[in-house]
Amino acid sequence: MMNKKLSKQLEFIKEIDKIKYIQRKTKLFKSNRNENDAEHSWHLAVMAMVLLEYSNEDIDILKVLKMLLIHDIVEIDAGDTFIYDTQKDHTNTNEELKAAKRIFGMLPDDQAKEFIDVWVEFEEGKTNEAKFARSMDRLEPLLQNVSNNGGTWKEFNVKYDAVYKKQQVIQEGSKELWQYAEEIIDKSVESGILNK
Amino acid sequence: MMNKKLSKQLEFIKEIDKIKYIQRKTKLFKSNRNENDAEHSWHLAVMAMVLLEYSNEDIDILKVLKMLLIHDIVEIDAGDTFIYDTQKDHTNTNEELKAAKRIFGMLPDDQAKEFIDVWVEFEEGKTNEAKFARSMDRLEPLLQNVSNNGGTWKEFNVKYDAVYKKQQVIQEGSKELWQYAEEIIDKSVESGILNK
Repeated sequence: MMNKKLSKQLEFIKEIDKIKYIQRKTKLFKSNRNENDAEHSWHLAVMAMVLLEYSNEDIDILKVLKMLLIHDIVEIDAGDTFIYDTQKDHTNTNEELKAAKRIFGMLPDDQAKEFIDVWVEFEEGKTNEAKFARSMDRLEPLLQNVSNNGGTWKEFNVKYDAVYKKQQVIQEGSKELWQYAEEIIDKSVESGILNK
Repeated sequence: MMNKKLSKQLEFIKEIDKIKYIQRKTKLFKSNRNENDAEHSWHLAVMAMVLLEYSNEDIDILKVLKMLLIHDIVEIDAGDTFIYDTQKDHTNTNEELKAAKRIFGMLPDDQAKEFIDVWVEFEEGKTNEAKFARSMDRLEPLLQNVSNNGGTWKEFNVKYDAVYKKQQVIQEGSKELWQYAEEIIDKSVESGILNK
């Protein structure tokens, strides 16, 4: 007989499969195919492993990976909110908190608490780990949009000021990566894939 | 100007996007849609976080996550080999080693070495971390096939003996999870979704 704890954990593991159907607005690199949240989360986790040395502060990379791997699970219930959505703020909506409680709440109590805490920490963006994790979350779509000749910027008529403002979050995690991001935002304006 | 090291790292980050196009034989849970390698790697990493307590030995979970996140990147060049393929052995083919050297070799030297070493450690399956990581890699398709009324077992006419033999790898990482896996393999025979 399977123990009750394992049973809960396996139900959670099956439930989160649904993240593979959550489509982001952003497309894969040099592609017309939308990225889904599982692919996105995987990519950010590997990026964090590779780019760790650029973090402004010494950080716990295990915590960063945990954050990145679970940060979008709430979208199973709450859906993906486009970062440049002018109607709806992305972060920490009640809908997302409710989703976190329902989905992470499928786990045994101690794990449910741990996962919710990690998710809240990412959303609040105050700790060094959360700041670096959030810089990965900004950097990936920037690279994707550049590779797609403007990508969602063109598609949804997003202008330089909005991009510059949203991308500044990178700075809090990594001044070096922000310097690079700033450069490619400027180049995107010059090459006409991002409008002022 | 971007430093040369960062430039290499970003080229690697773009290159591994291709893993999102590598289709596995196994389908998502209760689904007809094939899983891709990015989704699979993401799911295994979260499973490892959730199921860590069942590891036979105390392990370094950060190492396990790194292994699971990068273990299938070689398939960008080498392609996915079906675990029940009777023509081709899955593990440690020359093709995969060549792929590891090319793709991880895009990174700066120290990181290239680290990533290749982690990949080789996973493939060899000798350390406690590799054993637990490999048990995740077996458990996910088992759960998927059960949820799909036989899934790839039915589709490719895979029999009980082959499944039992391949799944035994779970035991090396986790006796407790193997006990559960054995139970559901037996139940699958009883319910007719796996043939003797």
